[in-house]
Amino acid sequence: MRIARFSIDGNVAFGAVEGDKPDELVLDIIKGIPFADFELSGTKVPLSKVRLLPPVLPNKVVAFGRNYAEHARELGNEVPEAPFAFFKPSTSVIGPGDEIAYPSFTQELHYEAELAVVIGRLCREVPRERVKDVILGYTCANDVTARDVQRREKQWARAKGFDTACPLGPWVETDLDPGDLTIQLTVNGQQRQLGRTSEMIHPIEDLIVNISEAMTLLPGDVILTGTPTGVGPLNVGDEVAVSIEGIGTLTNKVIKRG
Amino acid sequence: MRIARFSIDGNVAFGAVEGDKPDELVLDIIKGIPFADFELSGTKVPLSKVRLLPPVLPNKVVAFGRNYAEHARELGNEVPEAPFAFFKPSTSVIGPGDEIAYPSFTQELHYEAELAVVIGRLCREVPRERVKDVILGYTCANDVTARDVQRREKQWARAKGFDTACPLGPWVETDLDPGDLTIQLTVNGQQRQLGRTSEMIHPIEDLIVNISEAMTLLPGDVILTGTPTGVGPLNVGDEVAVSIEGIGTLTNKVIKRG
Repeated sequence: MRIARFSIDGNVAFGAVEGDKPDELVLDIIKGIPFADFELSGTKVPLSKVRLLPPVLPNKVVAFGRNYAEHARELGNEVPEAPFAFFKPSTSVIGPGDEIAYPSFTQELHYEAELAVVIGRLCREVPRERVKDVILGYTCANDVTARDVQRREKQWARAKGFDTACPLGPWVETDLDPGDLTIQLTVNGQQRQLGRTSEMIHPIEDLIVNISEAMTLLPGDVILTGTPTGVGPLNVGDEVAVSIEGIGTLTNKVIKRG
Repeated sequence: MRIARFSIDGNVAFGAVEGDKPDELVLDIIKGIPFADFELSGTKVPLSKVRLLPPVLPNKVVAFGRNYAEHARELGNEVPEAPFAFFKPSTSVIGPGDEIAYPSFTQELHYEAELAVVIGRLCREVPRERVKDVILGYTCANDVTARDVQRREKQWARAKGFDTACPLGPWVETDLDPGDLTIQLTVNGQQRQLGRTSEMIHPIEDLIVNISEAMTLLPGDVILTGTPTGVGPLNVGDEVAVSIEGIGTLTNKVIKRG
């Protein structure tokens, strides 16, 4: 099932995305929230009539660095032996179609296409064999980065945590094997990143074991799993799109921060 | 005014702390929340009858590293030219009297006494001269750190973000000049850290200009301002206390994570 979050007539709701043709998708409005047992209401609205929101409002976004070997090398870094994580704050999250605001404190904004895992239930110290049970589904993410700030500052709160630095969407796909999916990023229609999730150094199970060993994950928390090779600059006016096989496409335009 | 957050008979409320003698403090219950205009209800309860909670529930905790020169040097690090920030997640926050749970993924838990700034209003790109307007007040913090994990992992999400790694309290002092206060930490009554907030390399104004340049701060967000020299180990059974002049004392006991 594909679960979208959207606003219509000033109300926020979740809905199951139905249909095959991109222009004819409809949302069957969910009664309740997707983190517990829920029912479809049967009330349907055309997707074209709503505004999609970030598919979840995470308490925290945990992102893993250098999880694709080719990407680690392209920035001149060694491939880390163990996973390492950093946070992007909830204030950095935007949804599909929202604008990435190029902040004035950077002169080198970069895109990074990532597969995002959405946590479905409160958990800590998750054993490897139980990881699947704590996952609600998967969505696309762009780990937007102020590369110059990242080089200068030892910890990345500013470089990767500024407002609009975490586009998520377009929806959460709950029925998906994430092991070997094409992940692709385009800027103004031109392909810039192309990889497969099978190239991850540390697979999703390891990442969730690693972070949940330290901290409680909450329903709606998001885990970013690293970016494949090909990162590069974004400029004001660019349209950047992350596409992941079996999920969909997350598109955002870059504007100057007002 | 000193504003505490507490639970009584299963309800959560804010209250103004009144009284001079530590054993005779009372709470005047606040109508509403302290992030907007509020009134005291006149209904008073003895502090000894309630359970104090973390004085705020932050959306994010932004912590600055190496902001006291002596502390940077004691860990063999250079003093950074510019401030750098990292996040501690809301799931790491505990209150006064709560237990710090020593996690199994570290063998080297350290204390770090810090002055915490509590943000009072939504803000971004705060000019230096307006910083005072966005601050609600100040409290004590312990930036509990898995030092061995911090050395191993390039980003500090696990080392400083595990559950119980962010004790805050005992309350928020709103009427305080934070420029030159004694900050002290004891373990089992023995002094381990002693510094003055005037030793900060980057003063509070600079820290808030720095982080708000990148991201929106929300009411209740917390800024940790760095720790003075003298950091060291905590062991199961220890009682650790952070005292800041004009605020009070934040005490927590270390237990083994169950």
